[in-house]
Amino acid sequence: MTETKDTSQFVEDLTDQSDDFSRWYNEVVRKAQLADYAPVRGCMVIRPYGYALWENMQRLLDDRIKATGHQNAYFPLLIPESLLALEAEHVEGFAPQVAWVTHGGDEKLAERYCIRPTSEAIIGKMYSRWIESYRDLPVLINQWCNVMRWEKVTRLFLRTAEFLWQEGHTAHATAAEAQEETLRALEFYRDFVETELAIPVFIGPKSEAEKFPGADMTYSLEALMRDGKALQAATSHNLGQHFAKVFDITFQDEQGKRQHVYQTSWGATTRLIGALTMVHGDDQGLKLPPNVAPIQAVVVPIWRKEGEKSAVLEFVGRVRAALKGVVRLHVDDRDQYSPGWKYNEYEMRGVPVRLEVGPRDVANAAVMSVRRDNRAKESIPLDRLAERLPALLAELQKALFQAALEFRDQNLARASNLEEIEAHFAERRGFVAMPWKDDPKLEALIKERTGATLRCFPLPTESSKQLGGDGMRLAVFARSY
Amino acid sequence: MTETKDTSQFVEDLTDQSDDFSRWYNEVVRKAQLADYAPVRGCMVIRPYGYALWENMQRLLDDRIKATGHQNAYFPLLIPESLLALEAEHVEGFAPQVAWVTHGGDEKLAERYCIRPTSEAIIGKMYSRWIESYRDLPVLINQWCNVMRWEKVTRLFLRTAEFLWQEGHTAHATAAEAQEETLRALEFYRDFVETELAIPVFIGPKSEAEKFPGADMTYSLEALMRDGKALQAATSHNLGQHFAKVFDITFQDEQGKRQHVYQTSWGATTRLIGALTMVHGDDQGLKLPPNVAPIQAVVVPIWRKEGEKSAVLEFVGRVRAALKGVVRLHVDDRDQYSPGWKYNEYEMRGVPVRLEVGPRDVANAAVMSVRRDNRAKESIPLDRLAERLPALLAELQKALFQAALEFRDQNLARASNLEEIEAHFAERRGFVAMPWKDDPKLEALIKERTGATLRCFPLPTESSKQLGGDGMRLAVFARSY
Repeated sequence: MTETKDTSQFVEDLTDQSDDFSRWYNEVVRKAQLADYAPVRGCMVIRPYGYALWENMQRLLDDRIKATGHQNAYFPLLIPESLLALEAEHVEGFAPQVAWVTHGGDEKLAERYCIRPTSEAIIGKMYSRWIESYRDLPVLINQWCNVMRWEKVTRLFLRTAEFLWQEGHTAHATAAEAQEETLRALEFYRDFVETELAIPVFIGPKSEAEKFPGADMTYSLEALMRDGKALQAATSHNLGQHFAKVFDITFQDEQGKRQHVYQTSWGATTRLIGALTMVHGDDQGLKLPPNVAPIQAVVVPIWRKEGEKSAVLEFVGRVRAALKGVVRLHVDDRDQYSPGWKYNEYEMRGVPVRLEVGPRDVANAAVMSVRRDNRAKESIPLDRLAERLPALLAELQKALFQAALEFRDQNLARASNLEEIEAHFAERRGFVAMPWKDDPKLEALIKERTGATLRCFPLPTESSKQLGGDGMRLAVFARSY
Repeated sequence: MTETKDTSQFVEDLTDQSDDFSRWYNEVVRKAQLADYAPVRGCMVIRPYGYALWENMQRLLDDRIKATGHQNAYFPLLIPESLLALEAEHVEGFAPQVAWVTHGGDEKLAERYCIRPTSEAIIGKMYSRWIESYRDLPVLINQWCNVMRWEKVTRLFLRTAEFLWQEGHTAHATAAEAQEETLRALEFYRDFVETELAIPVFIGPKSEAEKFPGADMTYSLEALMRDGKALQAATSHNLGQHFAKVFDITFQDEQGKRQHVYQTSWGATTRLIGALTMVHGDDQGLKLPPNVAPIQAVVVPIWRKEGEKSAVLEFVGRVRAALKGVVRLHVDDRDQYSPGWKYNEYEMRGVPVRLEVGPRDVANAAVMSVRRDNRAKESIPLDRLAERLPALLAELQKALFQAALEFRDQNLARASNLEEIEAHFAERRGFVAMPWKDDPKLEALIKERTGATLRCFPLPTESSKQLGGDGMRLAVFARSY
């Protein structure tokens, strides 16, 4: 039983979270083969395991996007400089971090193009052509694509020059409909992130200082990582008539009057893979929520004597047949690795449930299931497996959410003034909730003194009960990714 | 019943294929809202209807890619110039048509990056890091992404600066396995294009002159458009050890010896949407194969008197319920357009079957189905609809393939020398099959005199029977897109 040198002891080599969280993160992303660095500044390669995770996430989010009446489309990668420049705040926000295309083949271009950092400009231009009448509204379009932002400091998934995302862009006849749409997107993001990724979030509007360049109002989802830093999981912007005026997107209303449309945009990115990693992972590696895990259960056959092998493998075949179409199953029957090595590997890769099949299990016509999250063991008879395993995965999905919620709530403090919030961040991290009136100066001062920013003004949701419901307007602060 | 000016008579405005095929194509792509020109040189916007078609195509092709053991991944958009330049033939083939990124924000880059025209270089670099041992082989990876080739003359879907595609990149231990893989991809492309897109193709190796820059051997699928020009529907390349030597992709074999891997790459693009349009379309617009049509059947309710409306709409509700989850159905109950207008619209958009529901149909508890391809009508009782409509769609799918095959065979001529092939192309288009021995000079001469190129050396398949099976090596020539 030989083992290749470079992978034999990879679990032992994983840095503990408590020693160096940032290093733990970089290691686990690479050891679990989610992603790798590319020979291109600030760019990553998403490896098959990471991409399968992304495909599962895409499908579950895309279902929600389509169920709410949106259609997918595709707009160009490149945006002419003159078009990006039309909207002043927007270009100011993005120009410093775009990649510029200046040549096509040997020919110098008359005008530079930037690689899209986001697509409001190019989509606004198309909407101005397509929208004529109130009958054309609402326009509800989403795009799955790659975007580029030339970041100085990069981290796999969290901050890379190129990343993958979806961006919704809608146009409406009234301000009220645009606001409704902004909140509709916020809600399906919340449902997706909490239900499928098992990550509890605060959702709510951002302050003026933190909003998207060119938006009237930005709403975000804020999650807490295990190192006590916040991560913005998705955003939904009410753009008002800002871009409509710049790009001249108008419609004839029912009275025959020409009006500017009201717009929204909203996005979620491959960053969510980083969030998943940092919310659920532990010193053994990833813990993937079953709803999105590429492999929901892995079967590890065990035999000591060659004579046991054929009976074990025959039984594994029956396990495979029983679970076909029921769960995403992987059978690891490789000869060259020991069962213990495999246990470590699939723990590192965050596979929710391991199914051990040894001679004793075969004798009992059962498999031994071991949960990734709490290592709980359970012998499941073969004839109950197709019913029990999905239930077990559902329990695990809920347990991950519950554990993340408890961690978040344990790391939620309160402050009522600058001194208290300073004292908190001098010693600790996590979220700090603070009663809030519009006060940009205090917001800036807190940022300067603590490094924490105003993440959002949380709206009441099932998972934000801990904040209390006395109706006071709260702001939550945290240091963040 | 008002109608907005710019869409009221769009069908009447469609150019006939026989008058100007190229103009017909441009019009139908835009009127059916598959795609639109973008304010970026040579780029297109794929509109929701076109993108839904692409999503259906993606899913059916992706299923085949995964069923043959491949996994999806994602590699960077940008390729450093030095990396692209490593493989001489490759850079010579692509450098004249790539877009160059020279600046990130305000900073001039030390090295230029090109936007990927294809990803052999960047993927080769990663494979050289990932592959160590024979146990790591085969590597079977596919990527869905956007690519750019700075084309001078562009046509929506057929030749645009940016397009969407998938590119498979595999690495193997032996030449035999790489050749097997090259043919495996060729075969699932053939099955996908013939079964799902209803397009008959010749498949086979290309000549030395027409192969992919850097490949040992290129295989292609060649389809015939209704104007008699050929279109390459997909390609599969056996790259041999060419890139492996350049990018130093080696593995330790079972005997402990270091060897270079053997590679393949294969791709299919949004060009296939152009192929679909030009193979099946007619003077009324698109004809979409049911297997990929975003809308497989459209229900048009009909009433003359206001009193009939509620009974018709109530019945339409029952039709919708009966077909839920059975076919991709759209109900067009818009008040402001007449039934006749709607018939034209859905014919333009190529919806395979129209279901008319008027007061007489309601009285018969039936719907009147009308096929897009041959206008055949059939009254289908409501209680048989869920069974009959899928069967009808399957018949239509077959009929489209059959019609395309007949057209292709009617436009398949034979020649045995330069004079005959010249005489053919002086008057006609289509495919010309010619017995062939390796003769690059004759190939070049034919191209020069006729504008036709050697499309491929067809392999025997079910749909290529017409070529005859006397074992002689044939080459097929055509003018092409």
